[in-house]
Parts: sequence; structure tokens; C-alpha cells
Amino acid sequence: MKIAVLPGDGIGPEIVAEAVKVLNALGPKFDLETAPVGGAAYDVAGHPLPPATLELAKKADAILFGAVGDWKYDTLPRELRPEQAILGLRKHLELFANFRPAICYDELTAASSLKAEIIGGLDILIIRELNGDIYFGQPRGIRTSELPLFKGAREGYDMMHYSEPEVERIGRVAFEAARKRGKKVCSVDKANVLETSQLWREVMTQVAKDYPDVELSHMYVDNAAMQLVKAPKAFDVVVTGNLFGDILSDEAAMLTGSIGMLPSASLDKNNKGLYEPSHGSAPDIAGKGIANPLATILSAAMMLRYSLGLPQEADRIEAAVQKVLAQGLRTADIYTEGTKKISTVEMGDAVVAAL
Amino acid sequence: MKIAVLPGDGIGPEIVAEAVKVLNALGPKFDLETAPVGGAAYDVAGHPLPPATLELAKKADAILFGAVGDWKYDTLPRELRPEQAILGLRKHLELFANFRPAICYDELTAASSLKAEIIGGLDILIIRELNGDIYFGQPRGIRTSELPLFKGAREGYDMMHYSEPEVERIGRVAFEAARKRGKKVCSVDKANVLETSQLWREVMTQVAKDYPDVELSHMYVDNAAMQLVKAPKAFDVVVTGNLFGDILSDEAAMLTGSIGMLPSASLDKNNKGLYEPSHGSAPDIAGKGIANPLATILSAAMMLRYSLGLPQEADRIEAAVQKVLAQGLRTADIYTEGTKKISTVEMGDAVVAAL
Ligand SMILES: CC(C)[C@H](C(=O)O)[C@@H](O)C(=O)O
Ligand SMILES: CC(C)[C@H](C(=O)O)[C@@H](O)C(=O)O
Repeated sequence: MKIAVLPGDGIGPEIVAEAVKVLNALGPKFDLETAPVGGAAYDVAGHPLPPATLELAKKADAILFGAVGDWKYDTLPRELRPEQAILGLRKHLELFANFRPAICYDELTAASSLKAEIIGGLDILIIRELNGDIYFGQPRGIRTSELPLFKGAREGYDMMHYSEPEVERIGRVAFEAARKRGKKVCSVDKANVLETSQLWREVMTQVAKDYPDVELSHMYVDNAAMQLVKAPKAFDVVVTGNLFGDILSDEAAMLTGSIGMLPSASLDKNNKGLYEPSHGSAPDIAGKGIANPLATILSAAMMLRYSLGLPQEADRIEAAVQKVLAQGLRTADIYTEGTKKISTVEMGDAVVAAL
Repeated sequence: MKIAVLPGDGIGPEIVAEAVKVLNALGPKFDLETAPVGGAAYDVAGHPLPPATLELAKKADAILFGAVGDWKYDTLPRELRPEQAILGLRKHLELFANFRPAICYDELTAASSLKAEIIGGLDILIIRELNGDIYFGQPRGIRTSELPLFKGAREGYDMMHYSEPEVERIGRVAFEAARKRGKKVCSVDKANVLETSQLWREVMTQVAKDYPDVELSHMYVDNAAMQLVKAPKAFDVVVTGNLFGDILSDEAAMLTGSIGMLPSASLDKNNKGLYEPSHGSAPDIAGKGIANPLATILSAAMMLRYSLGLPQEADRIEAAVQKVLAQGLRTADIYTEGTKKISTVEMGDAVVAAL
């Protein structure tokens, strides 16, 4: 089984190294091949997603991704910035289904800015469409406004859109996922304002007919942003578009207070996927050896389960992470009094030892 | 001074009645004229924003608005639904600047789902652009997709856009507001993906040069959704577009746990404005006499301050609300043990008594 390893920028290389360590300790032999991505790829190859990296990602069975982005690339034109690598991979590999679990581990409830009774035991799954919406819509650009009030002024514009098959395929992913969980799907849109959302809502309602055992509800995105704060445990699976999903999945992750623990998967229609931590490249702490590798290690577990057909190995990693938490071992981001603060490498070693 | 009173649907009439009671108790004589809006207007006039209501709103010096929306109008075509009334008023009256304070009252800290140390003393101001963005963008609709992968399928689409003068005018509003507060503006966009945001960011940076005493920062909307949960007190003034502002202002309001307390103002360039509570029409509790009228009463205070040039009267109302809270009087939504639960009407009476 071939895994493309793309460490990227900032803390990416450090946290990916620990996940690789865990994979190597598992038993089954993986064919791991590393390539540069993001700013690191721009530095060596002049582009955040060089052809060789894209080729490797295409021919691999799965991709283990660190993180991209660093302030030092802020002045580059947008098409050369690190983020283009992740957008390009999602689009070129048709990774349309983004799984973003928001889980609050019992041992880490205190790390949340929410009260324990609101957040304790949280286990929800945000499913974000990743190939459409305003992210890739055409036309887009800067032009001269034609609006009577602002005629002649410069204007930025971007087209949001979703077609019926795009909504249907992410809808099916959400209903299938809900079947294996709490059997509830909440579809989030802004159908009281947007035509795109009106179509979205209509298609979701249609798809739901094939899943009579799953309960579908609809919620406006502004209300969803509120309900996530007020009563996050009322959700099971949330399905939404690329833009709203970007915002809500990050909000949900931060609710737990331990975003350093949260993995993510981005899948194509054959369950080939890219796996990355939910957090970013954190250039401010890069190289200090204090980053939390657990989100990346748990992303590797998701990879084994969803793309590589090794659910038992995935379970083993997740159990090892649980054990390490129970042992009171913590990186700085999730440290609280009475626990033991350890480094990135020590955390990777602890997971390997617990396997 | 002429005030258009538009109670609307759900709890709208009950809460507006209490705000009117408070205005009448103040001393200065206001010329109050009431008209139907939203579903209530559809029922009597066949349109959520009948010409007579719009005329009244146009000729008034300010508008006191309750709330619109009720499930019973959900099956109407979108152009006849209650929400169109508020969208229409914003657009026709060029109310482009939406002020949404998120304040956590000391007495109500416990009502928040966030820990007291995170939320206690919160006082931030979200300024949302209200006339542009994807809310009113053209073209929009349902069409046949031209995308190679989905060619021929039905597709919903909506154009997001902002022109330079639109960004500049809301930017100036934000910087002026920050000058009177903590002197910090955080401009929220998605400039790593959207061209609209790229222009937005460029213009904000330009406008900031005229306000050297105010500190400008930029934040992506996904990160803003996280930072609001993690450390809301780090913000002072947040300025953002119509769509992101819809989501973030509701998230910020819910952080306080007492959205029933939060007023809002929507102003045009001459400070004529529409004033409404941040919460919605809550049809589930309409007519029960338990709704919290304080957000509407505080909206009336904002109206006196911003549109009617009566800052002292505004101060008096705000002080009266503080007094009522200190007396331990609470409507059901903000009730906690040890306080006294009272009705909508009793709360209005208590504010009048405290004046
Ligand atoms: C880096 C950025 C383009 C990206 C996005 O907006 O999708 C990120 O925020 C994410 O959620 O993975
Ligand atoms: C009712 C709806 C159209 C409106 C909006 O999206 O602006 C509401 O959510 C608001 O924030 O005032």
C-alpha cells in the first residue's frame, strides 16, 4: 500500500514525523514516499504543488498531509501561496467529502472554553463539501462595477454555485455516515437568501427519501453558528457546503478546546483520501518541539480505516492515544495542572509504546 | 420626531409594545406610527413589505422593528416570505451599517455556555455591511450547469461582490466606532480564497491610513469563528461583509448566553436607522407573555442615541435596564436560581419604574 507523505510547512514536518513513526511501528509494511508541498515546495520547486508532488499523490492509495502556510509567503501572488496546494489537491483528486469530527475527550474537557456540562462527551461529525461552492466558482476576479450606485468603481466578485449531482453525492455520504452513528443529519444552508441554498435544500430533502431510518433537519447557517455554541451535543452529523463548512467545522473544532487532537479526512468517490490534522501550520511554534502530533496520528488512523481497509490497525492507534491521555501525558496545548507536559517527539514515542 | 413602529410576527408585537411603553414614559413626545410588516403584513396586504409600510419607514426619522418570520409562511414563494421585509427595508433605505454589540452583563454571566473567565465582561462590537455581498448580488438563480462534470444538471448560483466604495464606507464606520472604544478594528474576510475578499482587504488597509490612532488587523473568517469561541475578549470592533457578518454576529451574540438582551442598529449614511433586537421572532413562545423585551428596549435606546440625538435619554434607558437586572428581575430566558422570574409586561413595567 502506497502512502504519499506530504509534511508541508510550519509544524507540518514535526507532526508528520511522529505519525510516520506510529505507522512504521504497526506491523504491516507501508510504502511511504515523501514529497514537498506548500511553501516548502515553492522554495525548492517554485510552486506550492509541483507536478511531481501531484503525480505522487495521484498514484498513492492515500495521502498523509501535515499543514501548509507561513507568513513568509504572504507577499507571493495568490496562485503561488501555500494554500493553493491543498486547494489543488482537493480539486485535482476530486476529494469532495471532508470528514471533520469534533470530539471532546473526557480527559480534556477542561481545555474547552465551554462549560463541562455543555461540551463534555461531545461527538459530532461535520461533513463539508470540498470541490464546489464559491471556492472554485467561475466567473471570479476584479472588474469595473456596473451597479448604478457604484458604476466605474473597482469590484471584486466570486460566483457561488452547486449543481444537483454535487449536492446529492455529498448528501449520500452524510446519510451513510449518520446510519453508522446517531441517525440524524442536519443540513446547513442559507436558503432564505441564496438560490444555491434553495437548490441544496431541495436536493437534500430528495436524497433523504432513500434513508427513511435517518432523520433530516435543515438549519440556516447563522442559526447553526449559534446552536453549536448553545447546545453542540444536539447535533449528530452536520452536512454543508464548502464555505459554510469551512467556518462551522473550525468553530466546532474550537468548541472542544483541543483542536490539537482533531483529525480530518478528505475522500473521493472510491474512498481514496487525504488525511490531515484540523489545525494549521502554526509557524509561531514550528521547530520548538512542542506541537501536538496527536491530530496527525489520529488522521493516520482514519487513513487506515477509510482508505487502506485496516480498521483493526486504526482501532489500535486510537486505543493507544486514549491510553496516553489516560496516563496523563500532554503536549503544551492541552496541558493542565496535574498532568505531565511532554514534547512532540515524546508524545509520538508514548503512542508507539502504548501500541 | 417621527418613529415608524413595525412589530412584525411571533413575539414581535409583545416586545415592541414594551419598548413603546418605555419611550412614552421618557418625557419627550414622539410621533409613533405603527404599520404591519412580515407575515403580519402578508396576511392583511398580501406582501411582507407593503408600499404603505415602506412609505412610512421612508418618511420616519427612525424605525423600531420587532421581528419577522413564522413557520406558517414557510410554504410561500420566497419573494413573499417575511424575511423579505427586513431585506427590503435594508436595501430600499440604504441601511448599510449594521451595529451588533455582543455584551455580557455581569449579572448574566452564568447564562452563557462559556466559562465565566472567558466571557465575563465581554463588550465587543460587530459591524456588518448590510447592503451588498451575495445577499443582493446579480446574477443569481437556478440554471443548467455548464461545468464539464455536471453539464446539463440543474444548478443554483449566486454572485458575491463588493465594490471599493462599499468597502470604504463600512470601513470608515468601523474605524470611527473603534475611535470611541478600544481603538482596534479586526477586518474579517476570506482573502486566501475569494477575490471579493482580496479587494475588501486591500481597501480596509487603505482606509486604515486615515486612522493612525486605530490598530487594524485582518483575520480569515474560519479563524474568526474559532477565536470568538477561544478568546472573544481579544476583539474590540469586528468589521465584515454581509454574509460573514450574518454568521459571526449571531455566533458572538450566542456566546453571551443572553441573546434576549442584545439590541442592534442598521444605519444609513445620515444615521437614520432601523432598530431591532438581535434575536428572532420565536414563534414557539409567541403570545405566552414570557419573551424578553429588553433587547427591544435597548434597541430603542440605541435609536435615541444614534438617530434621534437624545443621548441622555438613551443613557437613562440603559441605566434603568441595569437597575432592573441588579434588582434580580428576569424573564424566563435569562432566569437562574435566586432571581425572580417575571413576564414580558412586568419587565417593561419594571424598566419604566426604574427610569
Ligand atoms: C487554507 C484554506 C484555503 C483552507 C480552506 O478554506 O478550505 C483551510 O481553511 C481549510 O479549512 O482547510
Ligand atoms: C432573516 C434573514 C434574511 C436575516 C439575514 O440573513 O440577514 C437575519 O438572519 C439577520 O441577521 O437579520
